[in-house]
Amino acid sequence: MDTTTRPAVTGRSIIAGEAVTGSAGSIHAVDPATGRDIEPAFGMVTEAQLTAATTAAAEAFDVYRATTPEARAAFLERIADNIDALGDELTERAALETGLPAARLSGERGRTVGQLRLFAGVVRNGDHLQARLDPAQPERSPLPRLDIRQRHIALGPVAVFGASNFPLAFSTGGGDTASALAAGCPVVVKAHNAHPGTAELVGHAISQAVAESGLPAGVFSLVFGAGASVGQALAADPRIKAIGFTGSRGAGVALMKTAAGRPEPIPVYAEMSSINPVAVLPGALLSDPRQLAADFVASLTLGAGQFCTNPGLIFVPSGSDGDAFVAATAALLGSARGATMLTAGIAASCRSGIDELRTTDGVDLVAEGRPGGTENAPAPALFTSSARTFLTRPALQEEVFGSAGVIIRYSGEQELRSGLEALQGQLTATVHATDTDHATAVDVLPILERKVGRILFNSWPTGVEVGHAMVHGGPFPATSDSRTTSVGSLAIARFQRPVSYQNVPDALLPAPLQESNPWSLNRRIDGMVQAQG
Amino acid sequence: MDTTTRPAVTGRSIIAGEAVTGSAGSIHAVDPATGRDIEPAFGMVTEAQLTAATTAAAEAFDVYRATTPEARAAFLERIADNIDALGDELTERAALETGLPAARLSGERGRTVGQLRLFAGVVRNGDHLQARLDPAQPERSPLPRLDIRQRHIALGPVAVFGASNFPLAFSTGGGDTASALAAGCPVVVKAHNAHPGTAELVGHAISQAVAESGLPAGVFSLVFGAGASVGQALAADPRIKAIGFTGSRGAGVALMKTAAGRPEPIPVYAEMSSINPVAVLPGALLSDPRQLAADFVASLTLGAGQFCTNPGLIFVPSGSDGDAFVAATAALLGSARGATMLTAGIAASCRSGIDELRTTDGVDLVAEGRPGGTENAPAPALFTSSARTFLTRPALQEEVFGSAGVIIRYSGEQELRSGLEALQGQLTATVHATDTDHATAVDVLPILERKVGRILFNSWPTGVEVGHAMVHGGPFPATSDSRTTSVGSLAIARFQRPVSYQNVPDALLPAPLQESNPWSLNRRIDGMVQAQG
Repeated sequence: MDTTTRPAVTGRSIIAGEAVTGSAGSIHAVDPATGRDIEPAFGMVTEAQLTAATTAAAEAFDVYRATTPEARAAFLERIADNIDALGDELTERAALETGLPAARLSGERGRTVGQLRLFAGVVRNGDHLQARLDPAQPERSPLPRLDIRQRHIALGPVAVFGASNFPLAFSTGGGDTASALAAGCPVVVKAHNAHPGTAELVGHAISQAVAESGLPAGVFSLVFGAGASVGQALAADPRIKAIGFTGSRGAGVALMKTAAGRPEPIPVYAEMSSINPVAVLPGALLSDPRQLAADFVASLTLGAGQFCTNPGLIFVPSGSDGDAFVAATAALLGSARGATMLTAGIAASCRSGIDELRTTDGVDLVAEGRPGGTENAPAPALFTSSARTFLTRPALQEEVFGSAGVIIRYSGEQELRSGLEALQGQLTATVHATDTDHATAVDVLPILERKVGRILFNSWPTGVEVGHAMVHGGPFPATSDSRTTSVGSLAIARFQRPVSYQNVPDALLPAPLQESNPWSLNRRIDGMVQAQG
Repeated sequence: MDTTTRPAVTGRSIIAGEAVTGSAGSIHAVDPATGRDIEPAFGMVTEAQLTAATTAAAEAFDVYRATTPEARAAFLERIADNIDALGDELTERAALETGLPAARLSGERGRTVGQLRLFAGVVRNGDHLQARLDPAQPERSPLPRLDIRQRHIALGPVAVFGASNFPLAFSTGGGDTASALAAGCPVVVKAHNAHPGTAELVGHAISQAVAESGLPAGVFSLVFGAGASVGQALAADPRIKAIGFTGSRGAGVALMKTAAGRPEPIPVYAEMSSINPVAVLPGALLSDPRQLAADFVASLTLGAGQFCTNPGLIFVPSGSDGDAFVAATAALLGSARGATMLTAGIAASCRSGIDELRTTDGVDLVAEGRPGGTENAPAPALFTSSARTFLTRPALQEEVFGSAGVIIRYSGEQELRSGLEALQGQLTATVHATDTDHATAVDVLPILERKVGRILFNSWPTGVEVGHAMVHGGPFPATSDSRTTSVGSLAIARFQRPVSYQNVPDALLPAPLQESNPWSLNRRIDGMVQAQG
């Protein structure tokens, strides 16, 4: 992207490469530190404008999905380059809209472009196509076998709804968009209203990459609009074939309902709520309980607690070692200070979640930090309760999005196991343990496997590595679909489906399945992987 | 299985290895050729009896999913051996209950046990575990990378609803049961009421294999009951984590609705309705149109047309070559005779579907065969219509389950493409073409890819090879979930989800992920397949 033509924030949607002023009212971004509107106004799209975006996406689909691995990989890399080229303008705008520190946003940009480049590598390699060949067996008796080959194709246009808490990595150009594009799906993003300017800047970077790569403009659109109307209309649009969403359980479940009720139901990948339980086993308290407490408080309060993987629940043994850990944790949290949260609504919701814990029977406040210096920076809070209370108070499983944690004291392995068995689906579960805890860990692991997408030992769940082995997912209500991940290269598979070709002449077969293997793919022949080295 | 203790049909459900007499009323199997009840009565389970089955399944889950590849593979092979050992008793009972010829049922048994043995091979190989390792990078800057590993685990207990038309291959011990067991999921089968005795015999074979393999009895249960009550209760049971279904669109959609409306929504793999369009391109009529007509009629009337992949719609060019093909087809079909259908209800539904076509404007009857010698053997029927009519008559896309076909005459490629674009989701689409049709085939293929799960050239869709590259699936309404297949080894993946392990000590890692690779799996290291040769 030529920096001399670097786009400014205009308040206009990008519909198949065209800047379009939404004509159904407007919104402003709001500086959460001051409560003041940020210019410009963003015009919200009408249903007709939205339909123009989905129609263009559907029209672009066959051309885009037919791109070669090299062309599609280069496109993803160009998006990454263009996002990098936005420079400080992007992080400054994002900081203004979200209250997040520039350094954090700079790191998040690195993660976002790193993810695009990782997916480019996967697309070049072609393993995501999952090519399988069962060659003909003309001599087979009693019936000959015909040649059958299989590859995965893209599902179709995808609607993406970004998250408030990662305005880059889980938003306009984030994991859902990157994986859908990698799979061969055009994308229509409904911009998050908490960071519309950030969305527009990234939208320009993607849209520019579409043009620079000579792809049909409909491969990408970005629309501004109200979630409850434009969001639902997008999910209901017959041209949309899958949905990627990161956000609240309420909004996610509403999208699941819309998607299931369509004449043609479609998959929804909604990443929603999780309290990311931590189980501290007795041995883990023996060596350095103060360091453990410091690391816990750091993870709990990281980014004002606004992580999907925030460890909001921690099981700690009863007894003096546990008491010491709780005391150390309380001391640290009591001196922590709130930071500006993403929006006034999120801060209010955090405060009311904390207030609800404060008035829950059997739950005690053990420490409260200080509020931050802005309106929207509630004080961190820490509570304790017992394993028995946990089993009878469903409210303790409700996510409080922010720096709020509950310590559950347990007596013995059986109480711990009962507590873990009672958990709803989660993104992560963490175990802190030493060798002396081995037997308990062996008992606990199968329970956690049934409950979560990622199990950690002696580390903290905040921070989700973008790689090939990562699972950022888990059983409902952590996500709408436990069979996938929204982070890492396996995320691409969400937007694909298998098609098989029986007795199709070689010249008509798609390249991944042709006899000469023109793309040098790893293919599975009669079920056995033939790696290309 | 010791043949001297070969089980008889008793009319009792099998709940975690115990014979249980359902106490909520009873049903009988019915001989469709005569309409007469077949003994014995089958007791239908109460909700409490059903809960006993799902509870046992949930309790068996952790033990069963922890079985080694060898133990699980040997179990699948033992099921196959036990089904084989049922001998003629099985095919005779199935023939009596379904009206299907013994030879066909014998072939279907071969397919059923072959599938179990194929899956045993996949389980031994272990590729379905999809092991991925991203090794630690302690030196990485700015942050070190922790060790992250991923495998797929089983979803949990699965409810299976078998099909009427394949009482062995798509029923009690069919593809859904085999793939769920291969994935590590306990299975509760709701027996199909059209072949309960067949279900019970196969249920004994599986249950016996569970016992012989030393597995927890809850790994398998078979219950008799009414689909609308017991079936819905099973789908709503919180212990059930996925559903496999083959049957009508109405019943499939009802299960989808129940599964989506649960407190914890679960995946439904419903294979429902498909008319399996065939496109005859002009060149295909030049060489041997009579043979083509004979092959079409054979596929259309195979098994009284009771195949999910029955080619109910065929696009034929206008003009004299097409006229000759239609005439040849009409002559053959006009001399065909109906065969006994699976149930009186299915035969009645076939008749009413044919009657509806008979009275549809723009649709003409071109040939009608003779009814068979029993009550439930409607005459085959063949209709013609035009591509224009097809676009405006949704009824032409409704599946008539039976030997009923509609020929759509088209003028030129554009009319063909419009017709294909108007199709709903299908299991298969078939193209008959020669080299001279290459350009048209190139245009048509991307359309078909968007519509179906399997594309065939110069062959017929009836007959679904069980292998590694097969897709028996497709977009809604052919199935509820286009991302999968219900036939072939990829079907196992339906009942799995990924879990990742971060910084977990080697001694606590599951075997597929341990550093020493004790199961000698192909694993993906930093995204690259390391085949074990």
